[in-house]
Amino acid sequence: MMPPPYTLNEIAKFLHAELKGDQQCLIIGVAPLDKAEQGQVSFLGKVAGFVHNYRKHLASTKASAVILSAADAKDFSGNALIVDNPYVAYAKLTSWFCKEPKSFAYVHPQAVLGRNCNIHPSASIANCTIGNDVNIGADAIIGAGCVIGDNVTVDDGCHFYANVVIYYDVQIGKRVIIHSGAVIGADGFGMANDKGLWIKIHQLGSVIVGDDVEIGANTCVDRGALDDTVIENGVKLDNLIQIGHNARIGAHTAIAGCTAVGGGAIVGKYCMIGGDVTLNGHIEIADKTIITGSSTVGRSITNPGVYSSALTVQPHREWLKVVVQLPQLSKLINKFKQLGA
Amino acid sequence: MMPPPYTLNEIAKFLHAELKGDQQCLIIGVAPLDKAEQGQVSFLGKVAGFVHNYRKHLASTKASAVILSAADAKDFSGNALIVDNPYVAYAKLTSWFCKEPKSFAYVHPQAVLGRNCNIHPSASIANCTIGNDVNIGADAIIGAGCVIGDNVTVDDGCHFYANVVIYYDVQIGKRVIIHSGAVIGADGFGMANDKGLWIKIHQLGSVIVGDDVEIGANTCVDRGALDDTVIENGVKLDNLIQIGHNARIGAHTAIAGCTAVGGGAIVGKYCMIGGDVTLNGHIEIADKTIITGSSTVGRSITNPGVYSSALTVQPHREWLKVVVQLPQLSKLINKFKQLGA
Amino acid sequence: MMPPPYTLNEIAKFLHAELKGDQQCLIIGVAPLDKAEQGQVSFLGKVAGFVHNYRKHLASTKASAVILSAADAKDFSGNALIVDNPYVAYAKLTSWFCKEPKSFAYVHPQAVLGRNCNIHPSASIANCTIGNDVNIGADAIIGAGCVIGDNVTVDDGCHFYANVVIYYDVQIGKRVIIHSGAVIGADGFGMANDKGLWIKIHQLGSVIVGDDVEIGANTCVDRGALDDTVIENGVKLDNLIQIGHNARIGAHTAIAGCTAVGGGAIVGKYCMIGGDVTLNGHIEIADKTIITGSSTVGRSITNPGVYSSALTVQPHREWLKVVVQLPQLSKLINKFKQLGA
Repeated sequence: MMPPPYTLNEIAKFLHAELKGDQQCLIIGVAPLDKAEQGQVSFLGKVAGFVHNYRKHLASTKASAVILSAADAKDFSGNALIVDNPYVAYAKLTSWFCKEPKSFAYVHPQAVLGRNCNIHPSASIANCTIGNDVNIGADAIIGAGCVIGDNVTVDDGCHFYANVVIYYDVQIGKRVIIHSGAVIGADGFGMANDKGLWIKIHQLGSVIVGDDVEIGANTCVDRGALDDTVIENGVKLDNLIQIGHNARIGAHTAIAGCTAVGGGAIVGKYCMIGGDVTLNGHIEIADKTIITGSSTVGRSITNPGVYSSALTVQPHREWLKVVVQLPQLSKLINKFKQLGA
Repeated sequence: MMPPPYTLNEIAKFLHAELKGDQQCLIIGVAPLDKAEQGQVSFLGKVAGFVHNYRKHLASTKASAVILSAADAKDFSGNALIVDNPYVAYAKLTSWFCKEPKSFAYVHPQAVLGRNCNIHPSASIANCTIGNDVNIGADAIIGAGCVIGDNVTVDDGCHFYANVVIYYDVQIGKRVIIHSGAVIGADGFGMANDKGLWIKIHQLGSVIVGDDVEIGANTCVDRGALDDTVIENGVKLDNLIQIGHNARIGAHTAIAGCTAVGGGAIVGKYCMIGGDVTLNGHIEIADKTIITGSSTVGRSITNPGVYSSALTVQPHREWLKVVVQLPQLSKLINKFKQLGA
Repeated sequence: MMPPPYTLNEIAKFLHAELKGDQQCLIIGVAPLDKAEQGQVSFLGKVAGFVHNYRKHLASTKASAVILSAADAKDFSGNALIVDNPYVAYAKLTSWFCKEPKSFAYVHPQAVLGRNCNIHPSASIANCTIGNDVNIGADAIIGAGCVIGDNVTVDDGCHFYANVVIYYDVQIGKRVIIHSGAVIGADGFGMANDKGLWIKIHQLGSVIVGDDVEIGANTCVDRGALDDTVIENGVKLDNLIQIGHNARIGAHTAIAGCTAVGGGAIVGKYCMIGGDVTLNGHIEIADKTIITGSSTVGRSITNPGVYSSALTVQPHREWLKVVVQLPQLSKLINKFKQLGA
């Protein structure tokens, strides 16, 4: 498609929006309400989980057009793109303004390709390393420095950024985005203790990644011990996440950065898990559960809802008292009981 | 060695197991008791730290043979491989069924090799980068995209997966497995504050990794400030672990993913440290200490035992009360004392 | 410059130190007071935040010279290098004893270079991958396996170790050190929820890194959603840190390993943030704030000071009581109030 500018009319059609205002107004970018300049489109909408307090900027915005709900559009005198969910419309519209360089179909002459590979002619293969018996689907993009092991399947429309590593036998679905430094299919942390020495348990399973998954930079998804580790369709993983062997992440679940999912944990569908969370191994999390950031989940959650265990900082001197007193809680409760309360 | 199938007789010999049943029964794989099919071997044993409740599946398993303790074998009518520690026997047996592609002795024509390298002819060197004065031992495997700095020693039988980075002067022992994205020998986080500005302390030490160590994907082991950072024999590190400069991890200690070991911390031998743990810098942990997941260790531990500091999630509304009330604990205790309790 | 040895006279000039003792004494290395041998220089000074208890070793040290404050030098009979801040002087001196192999101006023949690149002839370009329209400044060092996207600027004196990834459009200031596996400019974790499905918000911003920044191994700095993510001058980031999109890290702030900074968080200047800390998104941290390790910061901090929320381990059985009783704190406080206290 053509680069910007786009007319508001073109944008309205793309977003299935009702356009109130100048159809031919030219748009060259996207910006928040308070920072937008002429030629930019903005939006007023709920951000996942938050209601950003941007409404106060609506009257004074310099944006050439604003994506709005019908209710918010009523009193707005500028150009309005009216949709049911302005935040979703904004998300869709960002794809038109992304300045990411486009890849084209080619195989870089320094790419190292194994035997019996089946690389679709529309794929873009940078100077990377691809093992034997690998399938790369249509329109897939494999970045520089990626290393893809033997017998891996990368389905249509995948985009692996630079220096992604996929171990042998892993299966990746359609339109999967994997960011740089992510490692998919390394050995799970399995070993048996033989009188103090650790005996490696070779990890005989693999990893199956569904369609429309996104995996963040430097995130690790380990291969399974006997069965496979599974990332279901539509899962979104942020950066620096650890997914232990034989974990299963349910469809359309989103997990923020630095979270660790223990081996064998089963996370439900449509969950939202904050950053720096730890999920113990071998637990199950019900569908649609929300875990707030920095929490530790020590046992299974069977009822969906919002769960937390993070504390927040206090001035250090105050906090030291808590640290000292917390272990005395037990004594306090006992004494209290003795008082007959 | 030959690929599967193997006879039970061959397996029994390898495991030093007593075989009860059909010596010629053919085995093609390994599976858990409840999922095993004909042709697969299974096991019933203690998993490190846990007793998995698999015993109920023993009577109904479809496995062609089961690795069992003598006690459990008594009432089992199927083919039994009787050993002292079935979990250890299972671990050993996985090496026979690992589908990992084998490497062979070669140097890839696109490998970049420095001057005065001493690469054993049995080593396998993929399209990686190796600096000057590097020693690579017998049967070592260096994966694609690895970068090994000057004056590094990689001893016999090491296996570095793709995109591992080893900085200059690092010494790696025998049979060390390092997974993709791990970085060994980057600068420790050392600096001096000069009226607000940070002056870099060049890290003059290195990293010494012992024999039979395994280091997980994207794990970092920093080089020492003056002395070396040391990972002793048999240590097992999971993914995304940070080992600060001048830390020492004692022999045969295992550390789960996302744990951070502060600079100068001395961890004893035969410790087990859970995932997402933080060990402060400059503390010492006694041999055979166990730290459960998500704990923070703020000071030295001199008595071995099991230690914890993780909380677990509550429903968010309940948890908010705790967060508000915890800083009041001090007041509560004081009032309580005033009551004369 | 020449390799060691150096005379004490040369060292004194470099450090602007007052030299008490043998000007021609030859120094070949640096070591701590208690481990120093003849020919080595040592120091006695405050380490950032700590006063290391090294004074007891001063009288018995075998070091050929010691960097000291005037006060500590009074009673010292050996060779003394007297400065205002011995720890800072030690930091500066380490640059003379660093054994890191030097790079020289060249472009490796296997480097993959894009169109319209402007690479300074004094830069050192290993077998890495550089996109189109990239500027690489004077004396910059780009390690093996690095991948630098289109339209990136890397200013003078930068040093990128092996396998660093810089996405398109990122700007890196002067003398920035980036360690292996770090990923700068990957997509921020932005998406809108459309009836359960996640719609990707393309990240239209970039990352701007100031001068004299150091970024640790496997650390991730995400590109901004609409505006840029900003790392100001002199910031020091340790390993395995996550910096979310549109965060801003104030000048000369230092952050220890495994810390996560949420999207849109604004961290002040001259802050010190410990390891394994979590800063929630969209909060602000005042200049000169100190956050101790393993803390979670749930809301903005407007008054500089020292803040904490980490607990420390207890014996597991004791800790289990706390875990059980903590949610009862609310009940306890209520009962207590009923008692009329």
